[in-house]
Amino acid sequence: MAPRYAPSLRSRLGPLLLFLQTGFILIYAFYFEIQENVVDEASFRDAYAEFQDVNVMVVLGFGFLCTFLVRHGFSSSGFNLLVAAIATQWALMLTGLESWYDRGKIPLDLRSVLVAEMCAASALISMGAVMGKANPVQLVLLALLEVSGFVLNEQLLQGLLKVRPLKGIMLLHIFGAFFGLTLTWILYRKGSERGFEKEKFDQKPGLFSMLGSVFLWMFWPTFNSVLVDDRFPGRKLGAVYSTYLALAVSAVTAASVSVLSSPRGKLNLIQMQSCILAGGVAVGVSMSAVHQPWEAMAIGFAAAVLSATGFKYLKSHMLLAFHCHDTAAILSTHGLPGLLGWFAHLILQIKDSGDPTVAIRFAVFHICTLLVTITVSLTMGTLTGFLLRLNVWRPPQNRKCFDDQAFWEVSGL
Amino acid sequence: MAPRYAPSLRSRLGPLLLFLQTGFILIYAFYFEIQENVVDEASFRDAYAEFQDVNVMVVLGFGFLCTFLVRHGFSSSGFNLLVAAIATQWALMLTGLESWYDRGKIPLDLRSVLVAEMCAASALISMGAVMGKANPVQLVLLALLEVSGFVLNEQLLQGLLKVRPLKGIMLLHIFGAFFGLTLTWILYRKGSERGFEKEKFDQKPGLFSMLGSVFLWMFWPTFNSVLVDDRFPGRKLGAVYSTYLALAVSAVTAASVSVLSSPRGKLNLIQMQSCILAGGVAVGVSMSAVHQPWEAMAIGFAAAVLSATGFKYLKSHMLLAFHCHDTAAILSTHGLPGLLGWFAHLILQIKDSGDPTVAIRFAVFHICTLLVTITVSLTMGTLTGFLLRLNVWRPPQNRKCFDDQAFWEVSGL
Amino acid sequence: MAPRYAPSLRSRLGPLLLFLQTGFILIYAFYFEIQENVVDEASFRDAYAEFQDVNVMVVLGFGFLCTFLVRHGFSSSGFNLLVAAIATQWALMLTGLESWYDRGKIPLDLRSVLVAEMCAASALISMGAVMGKANPVQLVLLALLEVSGFVLNEQLLQGLLKVRPLKGIMLLHIFGAFFGLTLTWILYRKGSERGFEKEKFDQKPGLFSMLGSVFLWMFWPTFNSVLVDDRFPGRKLGAVYSTYLALAVSAVTAASVSVLSSPRGKLNLIQMQSCILAGGVAVGVSMSAVHQPWEAMAIGFAAAVLSATGFKYLKSHMLLAFHCHDTAAILSTHGLPGLLGWFAHLILQIKDSGDPTVAIRFAVFHICTLLVTITVSLTMGTLTGFLLRLNVWRPPQNRKCFDDQAFWEVSGL
Repeated sequence: MAPRYAPSLRSRLGPLLLFLQTGFILIYAFYFEIQENVVDEASFRDAYAEFQDVNVMVVLGFGFLCTFLVRHGFSSSGFNLLVAAIATQWALMLTGLESWYDRGKIPLDLRSVLVAEMCAASALISMGAVMGKANPVQLVLLALLEVSGFVLNEQLLQGLLKVRPLKGIMLLHIFGAFFGLTLTWILYRKGSERGFEKEKFDQKPGLFSMLGSVFLWMFWPTFNSVLVDDRFPGRKLGAVYSTYLALAVSAVTAASVSVLSSPRGKLNLIQMQSCILAGGVAVGVSMSAVHQPWEAMAIGFAAAVLSATGFKYLKSHMLLAFHCHDTAAILSTHGLPGLLGWFAHLILQIKDSGDPTVAIRFAVFHICTLLVTITVSLTMGTLTGFLLRLNVWRPPQNRKCFDDQAFWEVSGL
Repeated sequence: MAPRYAPSLRSRLGPLLLFLQTGFILIYAFYFEIQENVVDEASFRDAYAEFQDVNVMVVLGFGFLCTFLVRHGFSSSGFNLLVAAIATQWALMLTGLESWYDRGKIPLDLRSVLVAEMCAASALISMGAVMGKANPVQLVLLALLEVSGFVLNEQLLQGLLKVRPLKGIMLLHIFGAFFGLTLTWILYRKGSERGFEKEKFDQKPGLFSMLGSVFLWMFWPTFNSVLVDDRFPGRKLGAVYSTYLALAVSAVTAASVSVLSSPRGKLNLIQMQSCILAGGVAVGVSMSAVHQPWEAMAIGFAAAVLSATGFKYLKSHMLLAFHCHDTAAILSTHGLPGLLGWFAHLILQIKDSGDPTVAIRFAVFHICTLLVTITVSLTMGTLTGFLLRLNVWRPPQNRKCFDDQAFWEVSGL
Repeated sequence: MAPRYAPSLRSRLGPLLLFLQTGFILIYAFYFEIQENVVDEASFRDAYAEFQDVNVMVVLGFGFLCTFLVRHGFSSSGFNLLVAAIATQWALMLTGLESWYDRGKIPLDLRSVLVAEMCAASALISMGAVMGKANPVQLVLLALLEVSGFVLNEQLLQGLLKVRPLKGIMLLHIFGAFFGLTLTWILYRKGSERGFEKEKFDQKPGLFSMLGSVFLWMFWPTFNSVLVDDRFPGRKLGAVYSTYLALAVSAVTAASVSVLSSPRGKLNLIQMQSCILAGGVAVGVSMSAVHQPWEAMAIGFAAAVLSATGFKYLKSHMLLAFHCHDTAAILSTHGLPGLLGWFAHLILQIKDSGDPTVAIRFAVFHICTLLVTITVSLTMGTLTGFLLRLNVWRPPQNRKCFDDQAFWEVSGL
């Protein structure tokens, strides 16, 4: 039996999860308190509706986005839920460290859970790069380290550069993408340039990933606007419109580029699924500088072109030239549009500021923000990669990659 | 290769979409402005939640409703998203023409996006009639012309008959259905009375279309109530209850008629999927005259009976007798329930108005509204039909109809 | 043909549904009125958003949860919608009886529809136990009787023990589970201990049930908090956090127990799907006594352990030892976590009340509540079981159980 099946997870995954979960419960018992003194009923319910939208994106959207892998649907959706549940609890602790220093207790309110879910989202993005090639033990460790790195990055940005929290969080796409790419580069398996035996996609699960993609597309305006300060509803509204328009333009542009870049003039569903989201990513990163509808639309257009072209040509190039196997194409889905958004922010801000001194100061600040983020991301990605490469985690053999049967009982009830 | 595959879309679809999208961005750059002076935060968020519901219906509901076609799931959901994204941007321009005349700028707010999405929904209804037999280029043209016709109809109704905007928009079901039917009648292909080789349905994708149908069913109360004036929350609430009850009754009645009309006493999932929505359509059209729960329920009952009977007997009759091939049965899903709702509105209004003079005046006004709508719908449908019949659009051959392979890459990653 | 196919439903289901639905419309015509005097617009919309969440859970969540049965997807989702639509209308009448006594009219408002949907949910839980083995006629009768029993139980609890309505409703998990178990025990079919020929599950529909499960998981915080009194937003918020944390812990724990209890160290998707919800069930029942995050998490942990262990070992034991075939494992999904929640409530309340006299009085009251609920549940389940065992309902033969073909047309359009 040993050579035919993937190594059993029984002695690794079960105890790890039990240990983490009981540990979390103990920590929560001593240091967390529910924040019940909300101002009024209406504000609670409004925040709750937005929280639900983000919840749907994190659990359903990301979970089903990767189900395009024909034999990997259970793992994609199931591990996503598992990792999201752990990463959110972990992020709640890390982001609450400051309150704990100050007051000995960490308050639990809707905003803190929201921020924690967004930190978890950055881990889910990184997970996309190694999806199918890592076992759940590795994914859980990835999530813990990625979230730690992301929170550290935010603290650094706020401490060193006085970056506003919202802007720091919106860098999650760039942070997650570079973390994931470094990781999968270090975890490179010999032979993967010939493709994995079971890395296939099929028409039927294609609709499940369409479902995940469409849920992300529909709720992305919430994702970008939810952390905008409530005292400026106009700005919040602007974030909603900008994101909506950028996404609409991305959808049209993605179809166009997809058909133009195909020799037989056909559309590619998976390419479209990741590229219709590019506008949301790019506007999310550049949001505070976008004030006109056309700016959002132009960003959406450029992001979709970049993302669709990247998906078509960069993915195989990355694999063959750099030995970097990026399962869910997170470079073109999150990385490139994120960088484009960062760049658009720079351009728009410089354009809007009349004074060249101010513009140069902003540019320096903006470039430093990116450098810090990428440095932390690459460093943490490298550390995580070397940790996860240890054989002690029993990664699945190449032959069992992208196969639900490695981790799931698939017959009998 | 030429005779085996559908004509490549590369030289048509790519440039068309790029041209439209860059044109839209330019127009938005010069004439649109984001409306940021919202009154207060709460009203923003409330409107946003409703906007999201409609968004889910348009993108997910309509998109997955047509996935019952076994080899056509990518096209149904993908083209729906593409057409919705274009039609909404186009509708935003057309419905903003008045503001542009008056002030040179078109304001962008949640209500205008909502109205634009509803105009897009009327195009998505028409699309149901030709789904599987038209290529995406034709679908995009259809959407542009259908939305133009629908907005024109609204302007005519408001200009000539002083119809309130809400009532005009709710005619979208009737307008969309007759537009689509005329179109598919003109685009009739020889041999389609024998059925298309690939027009099949299967059990697995059946659940995807169930998903689309169920999302429409769940969020229909929002669809009908969202444009009711906010100053009368009671009326809004009434629209929610009426729609909910009509939908519940429709679901039960659809099952009943489905089993009664089947010789072997079995249910038909696709028949049920379209007929459970009949109550929502009918109440949407008759809403302003519905004041009692039982009225909504009776309308839902009659609409479901009409819709389920129409689905069973009318669809094949339409094909054989009138050479009108209606893929998604939009006549029985939207057309007949819409007309029933129009008729119910007439009866209820006459019943409620004590004065016969008032009743007759209302009847004349109400009949004129319908006549104008159907005239514009048939005219625009005819025009669009003749335009789309041109060979320059390279429609797929009969043998490639209802086949994702004609437009999508279905193998390899 | 007769021996090969399941008995036709034409003469049973069609007339029954028509009779019920026309009867309901008549009753609504005479005794219901829409409650339009809402206080303000904001409160309407807030309540509406929560109502929609519950609607999604009832129609989509429960509907798709049981689609893991490979040949039973149409029935699981279609009958769920049908039963939900009937049960809600019926529950609206039963819960409105008191208003009818007092004022001759039953007001229809969002809260009453919400309560009715929750009563319907208790019927949907019971349905899980006989799913695949009962025909739709039996399911409709089940729903009518189960809802009657549940409303009766609530009246008894409120009349005899002064239990608050919220607490009574939250016992729906326990009531539904025991009702369903009694029912399936009485409806036991010889030979089912060898398993039904068509009771299989497969990878593809597994993702549909994952979808249902994930929707329940995401919206459960609304389910538990929606009926908490609006005048205490803090308490409502507490219910949201507690449920969210308990669900997150359940997800992690379910994965852990699933992998530990599998000899080959693999995860079981169906086990996980039902056990990730255990925390929501348990916290729902114990909610008013949960004040600390760690309490909710500990309850979620214990519920998931109990539920996952029960799923693994109890389900087959119940079948072989007690001749009780529980299709959707409602005992371990709803029954055991519900009882655990009841017990946790008792312990927490005793811990929090300093005075032993108060504690003992509460314990007696709490035990009586459970005893009444279980007694009514078992009694009504027995009655319903004997009624449904009559051959007049023409249940499907063993060979046609768990088969969509028995009730649905599955070929041709």
